[in-house]
Amino acid sequence: MNIVVDSALLAEALEDASKAISAKSIMPVLGCFLIEANHEGLTVTGTDDRATIQSYIFEEHVQIERNGKIVLPKLFLEMLKKLSGNVRIESKDGLNVIITSRNKEIEMAGLDPEEFPPPPSINDNEYIEITGKDLRGLFKKAIFAADIDGKGMPILTGANVYLKNGKIGMEATNRHRLSKTEKVIESGDFGSAVIEARGLVELQKIITDKDDVQFGFSKGRDDQVVYAFARTERFTFYSRVLEGEYPDIHQMVIVPDSGTRIEINKQEFLESVELIYTLAKEEKNNMVRLDVTEKEINIRGKGKQTGKASESIVPIKFTGQELTISLNSKYAMDALKALDGEKVTLVFTGKMKSIFILSNEDHQSVHVVQPYRTVD
Amino acid sequence: MNIVVDSALLAEALEDASKAISAKSIMPVLGCFLIEANHEGLTVTGTDDRATIQSYIFEEHVQIERNGKIVLPKLFLEMLKKLSGNVRIESKDGLNVIITSRNKEIEMAGLDPEEFPPPPSINDNEYIEITGKDLRGLFKKAIFAADIDGKGMPILTGANVYLKNGKIGMEATNRHRLSKTEKVIESGDFGSAVIEARGLVELQKIITDKDDVQFGFSKGRDDQVVYAFARTERFTFYSRVLEGEYPDIHQMVIVPDSGTRIEINKQEFLESVELIYTLAKEEKNNMVRLDVTEKEINIRGKGKQTGKASESIVPIKFTGQELTISLNSKYAMDALKALDGEKVTLVFTGKMKSIFILSNEDHQSVHVVQPYRTVD
Repeated sequence: MNIVVDSALLAEALEDASKAISAKSIMPVLGCFLIEANHEGLTVTGTDDRATIQSYIFEEHVQIERNGKIVLPKLFLEMLKKLSGNVRIESKDGLNVIITSRNKEIEMAGLDPEEFPPPPSINDNEYIEITGKDLRGLFKKAIFAADIDGKGMPILTGANVYLKNGKIGMEATNRHRLSKTEKVIESGDFGSAVIEARGLVELQKIITDKDDVQFGFSKGRDDQVVYAFARTERFTFYSRVLEGEYPDIHQMVIVPDSGTRIEINKQEFLESVELIYTLAKEEKNNMVRLDVTEKEINIRGKGKQTGKASESIVPIKFTGQELTISLNSKYAMDALKALDGEKVTLVFTGKMKSIFILSNEDHQSVHVVQPYRTVD
Repeated sequence: MNIVVDSALLAEALEDASKAISAKSIMPVLGCFLIEANHEGLTVTGTDDRATIQSYIFEEHVQIERNGKIVLPKLFLEMLKKLSGNVRIESKDGLNVIITSRNKEIEMAGLDPEEFPPPPSINDNEYIEITGKDLRGLFKKAIFAADIDGKGMPILTGANVYLKNGKIGMEATNRHRLSKTEKVIESGDFGSAVIEARGLVELQKIITDKDDVQFGFSKGRDDQVVYAFARTERFTFYSRVLEGEYPDIHQMVIVPDSGTRIEINKQEFLESVELIYTLAKEEKNNMVRLDVTEKEINIRGKGKQTGKASESIVPIKFTGQELTISLNSKYAMDALKALDGEKVTLVFTGKMKSIFILSNEDHQSVHVVQPYRTVD
């Protein structure tokens, strides 16, 4: 390989691909970038073996004097950031790599490109087209609710994404809370896939609002989804899907007609919950307690060592019965931050029943939080 | 105590005082703020028992309804940042503290104010007056060279500061490198004091360029300096000085007339050293090697696992003999970053002799780095 490319442009491509590289991998090659030069330009790949990100520099932005492949450690990105202007990257044997920039010369030991896991080969005909802004909006509303750290059931480390009935939908849960969001979109009936939430969080970071994204599923012989992918002009993201049945949450997200229903100012409520979260952040449960009456919602919480806090908010609307209920302040904060609009509606059907947190502007999104059992 | 104050103004005062609070203290009271209200206004104190910072809110900016003292944990600052506008802080017994802001009410458990270490009582008549800009400039040029983590001699965790002969001067060393800087200033002959570098780093953060600072020494009966202090309108910083003799570095900072002397572009040299530092950052020694000739300075280094890097820079001026010498790239970077001006002069008197790194614009500052012993 022998190429000349702008150091900042290459650093951007590496930055995107690096999002798929896991810091913890025990296989050295998974801590590296694969850089390939051919007549189409430059492709940079990073992978943790489940998710893969390939980013592109087209041939008009790179001078390719000899095709080839090299594999360099993540440190290469840091080194590149210390350079400016054009850099020449050259390797005769694919292992020893010489990087030159003005008077600087760097020699790095590469790994064998043949050891780098090949990118998944996908059937790419089942996808929807969506703007980066819309796709990021959907991610923001749902993914956080997954069990990202994965201490429970493996399937819950993912978000269930479906492309059917003219919609894209996402749902995620860690069994104590649940989020679901949908958007009407031109789509075939492509089914659903459980995609690792951690990978989607990284994907969310590299998509920009202005991107046009093709988001789709690649199926195997038995018509099961094997990979999900997201493709823009700059990159392709692939994620192997999680195996197993995603729990059927259909019944859980049906917002009840009965019960207590209050409408409140989102920011006011969020600030109050954040105050309690801060005070009680050393507590395992970090509980916020709501006393809901027609005249006011009293919000309070305490830390064992630190003290207690409370605030009363006047509801904009109130219907139903007065009640007292407790929930995790972090879960409440996360749901409120994910919601669009200035007002939220909370629906309660009983002291030990699911709490629904809803946006007044977006009726396609539902957040559900399980209450804590408390003693009066 | 019963006061009303703007939450942002109080948060600023707490932020300054918090710089003296050590996260590691085993005494709970040293993880707290002392807040005192009297007819002059509000005083906020943080201390780790060696350094103390007191910040002030004058009576025109705070409404004091009842004098008093409270001691609250560092968490109080975080809570305050979640509030806006005026807050009322009230305590009847000095222990239970009620903070109210609009509809929010927080109750925090305070500690006994009598347990808070009293601020040092100082003789404050021996000081110089200096702008914040100048004082920060001096700190920047010298303090980094101290043995801040203190694995060696305790006295080297400090910087030696002197106020004499119409000058303020600072020197610091960790035995492998050394920095010295001076500034001519209107000053009496107040002697010298070794001040913990860690405290000076925090002081540097809270001084602004626009501050007028009184910087001085408070002496005990035997005319020994016991405390150093820095005072502005907003705060007073006190630091108990380190006991013991500071090593006499007088001979070590005399720049030799003979030897090899090169003048080079600072930025160009710094970028080259940074590249090597990045490449070799996993190496204990992180060595950069200089081949100094009349035509060029070749700068190179390597990481065992990562590769090697080199660059040649053309010296602006060269006198003396050609030589090859190796030094710690981190020490070189630190010294270069501390220097004013676009050009630096390096002076070498032999392969195993001290390397002098000098600014061409500031003849009051000297940086010395010991070379590494290397095998050709």
